[in-house]
Amino acid sequence: MEKPLILVTNDDGITAPGLRTLIQLMKEIGEVVVVAPDSPQSGMGHAITVDNTLYSQKVVVDKEKGAPLEYSCSGTPADCVKLALQEILDRRPAIVVSGINHGSNASINVIYSGTMSAAIEAGIEGIPAIGFSLCDYSWNANFEGAKAEIQRIVAEALLHGMAKGTVLNVNIPKTDGKRPKGIKVCRQARANWKEQFDKRTSPNGKEYYWLSGEFELLDKGEDTDEYALKNGYISIVPTQFDLTAHHAIQHINNWNLHE
Amino acid sequence: MEKPLILVTNDDGITAPGLRTLIQLMKEIGEVVVVAPDSPQSGMGHAITVDNTLYSQKVVVDKEKGAPLEYSCSGTPADCVKLALQEILDRRPAIVVSGINHGSNASINVIYSGTMSAAIEAGIEGIPAIGFSLCDYSWNANFEGAKAEIQRIVAEALLHGMAKGTVLNVNIPKTDGKRPKGIKVCRQARANWKEQFDKRTSPNGKEYYWLSGEFELLDKGEDTDEYALKNGYISIVPTQFDLTAHHAIQHINNWNLHE
Repeated sequence: MEKPLILVTNDDGITAPGLRTLIQLMKEIGEVVVVAPDSPQSGMGHAITVDNTLYSQKVVVDKEKGAPLEYSCSGTPADCVKLALQEILDRRPAIVVSGINHGSNASINVIYSGTMSAAIEAGIEGIPAIGFSLCDYSWNANFEGAKAEIQRIVAEALLHGMAKGTVLNVNIPKTDGKRPKGIKVCRQARANWKEQFDKRTSPNGKEYYWLSGEFELLDKGEDTDEYALKNGYISIVPTQFDLTAHHAIQHINNWNLHE
Repeated sequence: MEKPLILVTNDDGITAPGLRTLIQLMKEIGEVVVVAPDSPQSGMGHAITVDNTLYSQKVVVDKEKGAPLEYSCSGTPADCVKLALQEILDRRPAIVVSGINHGSNASINVIYSGTMSAAIEAGIEGIPAIGFSLCDYSWNANFEGAKAEIQRIVAEALLHGMAKGTVLNVNIPKTDGKRPKGIKVCRQARANWKEQFDKRTSPNGKEYYWLSGEFELLDKGEDTDEYALKNGYISIVPTQFDLTAHHAIQHINNWNLHE
């Protein structure tokens, strides 16, 4: 039987340890092709390259025997998926996996997430897709603990497919190599970032800012991704790209919008 | 009575005719402050500037008496909103309006939209917000036709507020200055882009791509934004940033995720 084709991408760039870990895990499940940004793209949201040129080249990162085909791309994670599907792959992948991101994409972070934008881009094309993120921003984050769970989630996704119009946002608690307690299917927690701008002056006297902020959880629910992660579980949130707030349509229909 | 404070931003940049039109319209409703990108940011999705410096300065674009305070910002539309709320404005705005975008943000385009990312950023902060887009990509697009409707929608939004966790995605048909037929409250049409990559070779022999594509409507519903626009109506889609696909949670709970 033909092995399933697995497209692997991320937003931290093609050399990121999280991506290299995901490639190794996916090689045991299917035939892997990697198309990933040539430089970090964190915080890029669902950006695409519309007014600029896009470079892509075959690269060899892993010299092992049986290493997958790999391509770097000058664009965003969403660009990588578009380019892979349209130009690079010779058949439609069975699944697209993105990550493992160095840092959380739980709760409101999904909105800013390049990792998830790659998964969503695949989902728009009707391809099952999963974004994986570890709640540890360090480049030397320990990805050991959840290896078995990552493989299990991908295997189940290949078996069952996705509910129409959805992809999966999987976040993994920081366990420093220990197994997480298990897996919880969750909803996205309500949260925001309390922004702080660090105002500085450049050597030539120009004012500039660094964006930083503090995460603020606004949700006491026990069915949220943040709750699962805080309690040592992997969270899976089925994530949709139909952003219609159907419940709000009636609210607006009561407005006086007609002469 | 104090006039409502209206923050105006966009993704085409501070000099774009669509933004200049929106400023003029909002001046008749409230006190306007403009914080907008210093250069076009189309296709930026919900990007934020996390690993780079952010510049912002007071600018004078409009020399008329009573012209609003304006600030340009080196960042994305989402950055503009964060910076405005945290650093520039001295009180919380009554509403944030983004646009008028030169080009459609209906159906799946909402995912890639810088215009809508600014509105969503405000929505996350609990501030009523609306993204306006005209279905005409031209820099010289004619924004005349829908002026009364834009003011009416903003006035109604100020009166009624938003349903919790939602913002509005307003798209305006291309009418070349004529009044649209009316306003329809819609759902986001199912659609995607059939990508095409135009492969070229640079003068120094390096291969590169231009991303282009053709819009593909996959939805025959008559309650969609695309249907309204095609029939000459303005579409309003209430848009949410909780991306949880609640209906899919049960689907995944049936998977074999536990040992």
